[in-house]
Amino acid sequence: MTTIALLLFPNLTQLDLTGPYEVFSRCPDTTVHLVWKTMAPVVTEHGMQILPTATFADLPQADVLCVPGGFGVNPLLNDAETIAYVQQLARSARFVTSVCTGALLLGAAGLLRGRKATTHWTAHHMLAEFGATPMHARVVTDGNVITGGGVTAGIDFALTAVATMFDRRLAEAIQLGIEYNPAPPFDAGHPDVAPADMVAAMREKGAPRVAERLALVRQAVARLNA
Amino acid sequence: MTTIALLLFPNLTQLDLTGPYEVFSRCPDTTVHLVWKTMAPVVTEHGMQILPTATFADLPQADVLCVPGGFGVNPLLNDAETIAYVQQLARSARFVTSVCTGALLLGAAGLLRGRKATTHWTAHHMLAEFGATPMHARVVTDGNVITGGGVTAGIDFALTAVATMFDRRLAEAIQLGIEYNPAPPFDAGHPDVAPADMVAAMREKGAPRVAERLALVRQAVARLNA
Repeated sequence: MTTIALLLFPNLTQLDLTGPYEVFSRCPDTTVHLVWKTMAPVVTEHGMQILPTATFADLPQADVLCVPGGFGVNPLLNDAETIAYVQQLARSARFVTSVCTGALLLGAAGLLRGRKATTHWTAHHMLAEFGATPMHARVVTDGNVITGGGVTAGIDFALTAVATMFDRRLAEAIQLGIEYNPAPPFDAGHPDVAPADMVAAMREKGAPRVAERLALVRQAVARLNA
Repeated sequence: MTTIALLLFPNLTQLDLTGPYEVFSRCPDTTVHLVWKTMAPVVTEHGMQILPTATFADLPQADVLCVPGGFGVNPLLNDAETIAYVQQLARSARFVTSVCTGALLLGAAGLLRGRKATTHWTAHHMLAEFGATPMHARVVTDGNVITGGGVTAGIDFALTAVATMFDRRLAEAIQLGIEYNPAPPFDAGHPDVAPADMVAAMREKGAPRVAERLALVRQAVARLNA
């Protein structure tokens, strides 16, 4: 039996969570937990409410830890209870993983030091603050740490993780089941390919939020180094 | 203000719903409802519980109707209350849409007659029962009816729908935000490309469920023709 703990927290980007959930839930002899501090419904970034299946106290360990991202990560970067829980699971987990800006929480728990990793493109440069090496790849595996890029990268991440944790044949069968043969109608899914003015506008509009997040990241680093 | 109604029902495939939810929720001046008969948490196919935001009675009309799929579609194909509600929304909706086997529910409501459409590969042939023309495409637009293929096709579907309903620039900006620049680690996401023995094994294993579903589809067709 494989136990996978997906962290479910307020204001997460629900697709960061639900992409991997769909893939992991199709693995044989596997239990996927949605774990949070309490069992109350969790309100995600755009309002969708999802119910946890376990509290931190209910699930003291898991084979796989997976942290999704979203702006809800920010207050957790210096939240003692959550950091302690992430560190606790990481101590005995076979794989420590993240999607999108969930990587920042792994970093804030000191789990990315000396590791190659990736995250959403708006936060990519922040990984270095945690002593990680930011990689320009959609999925990065470094030892038992597997990180995915922004939001939809969670599907590529999860298929890669299933191939690593179980076997490639299972990952392919799940890919067939979820008909993951993507055909984006446009070619705008990354700053390298999107219209330059669109990327510039998004960077400008997002600058205050990036600055706010970077300050929290640096606060977390100071805590780790204290 | 645009109102989008996503049908949330027991045993749906949650990624069919949550992919489009993530995309639609990023549209300006748009409210995305998760609508079901009651407000109690809905248990999806692999256990994830999601809360509805409105009941059928709360939401008598919407600009866009979107029906996700999963085996939870089966009991709805001949469920008078759900069929009546889908027909009610479709009467005034600007767009009538589905992801995966949600198309079967549109068919059972008589909404696919004479329309080109698509659905999950395991159910593709069933569309013809409803008088639709099954198309081998990941997203099919026929007038105001937009249908997507299996599960993950919901993301391609939703970006296409946003470009149609709003404009292409918005769809591209959302694609950039959710970093949808897919890089599947394997090439097994459709029967045309997956290993032949894997496709054959999945077809064989799924045959009883396909037969059961086809019987329900034919019951729905008989009802429509009565």
